[in-house]
Amino acid sequence: MNVLVWNEFRHEKENEVVRDIYPEGIHAQIASFLGEEDIDVKTATLDEEEHGLTDEVLAETDVLVWWGHKAHDEVDDAIAEKVKQRVWDGMGLVVLHSAHFSKPFKKLMGTSCDLKWREANDKERMWVVDPSHPITEGIGEFIEIEKEEMYGEHFDIPTPEELIFISWFSGGEVFRSGATFRRGRGKIFYFRPGHETYPTYYNKEVQTVIKNGVNWVNNNDTPQPVYGNAHPLEDILSKA
Amino acid sequence: MNVLVWNEFRHEKENEVVRDIYPEGIHAQIASFLGEEDIDVKTATLDEEEHGLTDEVLAETDVLVWWGHKAHDEVDDAIAEKVKQRVWDGMGLVVLHSAHFSKPFKKLMGTSCDLKWREANDKERMWVVDPSHPITEGIGEFIEIEKEEMYGEHFDIPTPEELIFISWFSGGEVFRSGATFRRGRGKIFYFRPGHETYPTYYNKEVQTVIKNGVNWVNNNDTPQPVYGNAHPLEDILSKA
Amino acid sequence: MNVLVWNEFRHEKENEVVRDIYPEGIHAQIASFLGEEDIDVKTATLDEEEHGLTDEVLAETDVLVWWGHKAHDEVDDAIAEKVKQRVWDGMGLVVLHSAHFSKPFKKLMGTSCDLKWREANDKERMWVVDPSHPITEGIGEFIEIEKEEMYGEHFDIPTPEELIFISWFSGGEVFRSGATFRRGRGKIFYFRPGHETYPTYYNKEVQTVIKNGVNWVNNNDTPQPVYGNAHPLEDILSKA
Amino acid sequence: MNVLVWNEFRHEKENEVVRDIYPEGIHAQIASFLGEEDIDVKTATLDEEEHGLTDEVLAETDVLVWWGHKAHDEVDDAIAEKVKQRVWDGMGLVVLHSAHFSKPFKKLMGTSCDLKWREANDKERMWVVDPSHPITEGIGEFIEIEKEEMYGEHFDIPTPEELIFISWFSGGEVFRSGATFRRGRGKIFYFRPGHETYPTYYNKEVQTVIKNGVNWVNNNDTPQPVYGNAHPLEDILSKA
Repeated sequence: MNVLVWNEFRHEKENEVVRDIYPEGIHAQIASFLGEEDIDVKTATLDEEEHGLTDEVLAETDVLVWWGHKAHDEVDDAIAEKVKQRVWDGMGLVVLHSAHFSKPFKKLMGTSCDLKWREANDKERMWVVDPSHPITEGIGEFIEIEKEEMYGEHFDIPTPEELIFISWFSGGEVFRSGATFRRGRGKIFYFRPGHETYPTYYNKEVQTVIKNGVNWVNNNDTPQPVYGNAHPLEDILSKA
Repeated sequence: MNVLVWNEFRHEKENEVVRDIYPEGIHAQIASFLGEEDIDVKTATLDEEEHGLTDEVLAETDVLVWWGHKAHDEVDDAIAEKVKQRVWDGMGLVVLHSAHFSKPFKKLMGTSCDLKWREANDKERMWVVDPSHPITEGIGEFIEIEKEEMYGEHFDIPTPEELIFISWFSGGEVFRSGATFRRGRGKIFYFRPGHETYPTYYNKEVQTVIKNGVNWVNNNDTPQPVYGNAHPLEDILSKA
Repeated sequence: MNVLVWNEFRHEKENEVVRDIYPEGIHAQIASFLGEEDIDVKTATLDEEEHGLTDEVLAETDVLVWWGHKAHDEVDDAIAEKVKQRVWDGMGLVVLHSAHFSKPFKKLMGTSCDLKWREANDKERMWVVDPSHPITEGIGEFIEIEKEEMYGEHFDIPTPEELIFISWFSGGEVFRSGATFRRGRGKIFYFRPGHETYPTYYNKEVQTVIKNGVNWVNNNDTPQPVYGNAHPLEDILSKA
Repeated sequence: MNVLVWNEFRHEKENEVVRDIYPEGIHAQIASFLGEEDIDVKTATLDEEEHGLTDEVLAETDVLVWWGHKAHDEVDDAIAEKVKQRVWDGMGLVVLHSAHFSKPFKKLMGTSCDLKWREANDKERMWVVDPSHPITEGIGEFIEIEKEEMYGEHFDIPTPEELIFISWFSGGEVFRSGATFRRGRGKIFYFRPGHETYPTYYNKEVQTVIKNGVNWVNNNDTPQPVYGNAHPLEDILSKA
């Protein structure tokens, strides 16, 4: 499986707090724990040519992991469109935290993807609400994160096809934190945690969920739909 | 629309705290606010003959509202079975609070319907997660209840067909508090609040949701499925 | 309820077969049977200024019915975007037949919306698969249409939130013909039949389903979500 | 993975046509092609003691495949109940053809599970409607079976969580032929084909789907929910 971890990679350059946590960038940290599995992991970032998302790179990517926050608008529309179409073609997509507002995710959802938020060191508890789902393998009843940015409902997404986690926040909000969607041959997993000023991607349970998500969205050889003008009815009847 | 409010009606007789809140019984209070609408409301209770659920009564009931808690086992199996079959035939069912463990609901869900609970005056906030759903008409972003029994995940129900409310509790839990299900021609709405020691059914927003739920589960003339041995293929082909 | 029936209105001007069936246009025929209900119906067409979809018109429309086929590309992007945003805000949308490829529907779905098709006088049978759904009120086990264009799977839409009809075609295909989706506060109903060369919108059962669909997507006063930066945690805690 | 293939095993003993197709029983044929994978396959049949479903056997079974038809009523209620509870505990269940009316499936669904049927050598085409689902890996746009028993809608099941196949039948019907459900920690896959008088389980594509289904329902180590009385709120607050 070829996994590409894409990161905006701006906060880390501009903000010392973030750089201290992720000195090589959020993408490097995510690639690091994914690399412990039997996975071929590469990374790409916004400021690379074509954002590191050339046709060749996309064509050979089985699963794309996306983190972005402050520079969604700098992602070229044509490239966001290509990412969307690769998902339709079967590439898996794991969308992390503030990438709820990324261009590819919004194009794929058809909603505003808006939400409530607060940066105030809320405690978060992500409760498992689907204990049959492989994305929950290896974790317990809930994942607790001592301090995180709060994301609250209403989260303006289409009804998830599978709802796996619901977050509780100490300030009084709830959030659908782990949710899956299908678009064409592609599977999508949205996973909430990971504000850049917290060391969330060092949390072992968060890592487990991301690994499980990468495995779950990977598509191995499902059928290729055929569209357009179909065989004439007479041909069918003559064969009957 | 003919609505029947069914109540176990035991706590009110045995516990002074509950009797003070609901002197005529929980069923009487629910019937009272439903009666403000253009609805014909009747009530029935466990200790009536056949629990007040004779074939005649069930046949003329469009929507059944069910509250039970400590005496689920005293509901006759054959009557629970009849309630289930009336739902299959198109009767709407609104299941309140501890009726998650009632015989008809468990038979209709096919799961244990188990959950976590705590009686400790938790604050509850029920957040709307589907602001397009008619069951949310007339309420705001969330409903806050100052003190309630906590119900927490995992709530062992089938994946709801529509998830409308998610509760936040001050003690750290979340709960899928408003959820719908379809069984045959019948629609089911589960709504969490209403522990007997709190005056929850006097809350105007809770009342609005129950009214909306009763309207939503009511089925007016959808098709009657036909089952069994179908017409022979030759007949179809000869008509082609 | 204010309903606006939008039609491309090109086939009727250019093709005598279509004009014979719908001399005033498909929109006029749909408006005609909707007008039998307690509904205020207006129409708009592609070649009107702003396609008849000014901000004022959209603002006062509760439900928009959309038919288009050969000129999807002539719909202005900015207007398609406004339609999408009005759906997010709560306007109901009924999408008919070849409008599966209309700009608003594609933007709202996030998929290609592609499908198989064949113009060969197939017989169609639309089977009810959800006999609890109000959109099926007043019809039987299935709706049979003697001759229609075939639409076949795979239909590249997100998993429908509710699947109501599945079509059988004499040539060997099936199709998810009646399906609902939710986007923000808005509800969407896609309904398959209605190729311009057949008198499908004179079929009483098809009319019943469209009427039911218009009623179902209409949103009366559900909550307005609040997005963005939330109240600070300290404020909440100080009130606790 | 430990798979147990359960078969009623009556038709094969009583009907020469069936015996000619499945001389060792339907279970033996299914076990045979499952055994080609890296799976430990056992079988059990109705007339064994406890139907071959002792507590020990169930405890060590990861995935149960069930075929039954004419003797559903002879399955002991207590054993059907144990099967249901093992599914809640995480055992996968693959339900084949006429097992739609088996006791475990009906208990898990909460519906009548009724349907239309016809034994008339209909041609069946099972169309893939979810080309992202791993259960479709390795097959094409559809699976065609030259002769099979027809099953038609309405199929009285809860709305499937995932709908994977829809069947077209030459006589004019459609059927939701491949569908998944979740109950507790257990996953369920219903798959339609396999009437005893046709050699359906020798069809390579049908075999592929059953293998994929067995893999999909297998649950590896998802969280064990905790139910019942939760920790007191004071304990939580004192730790806050």
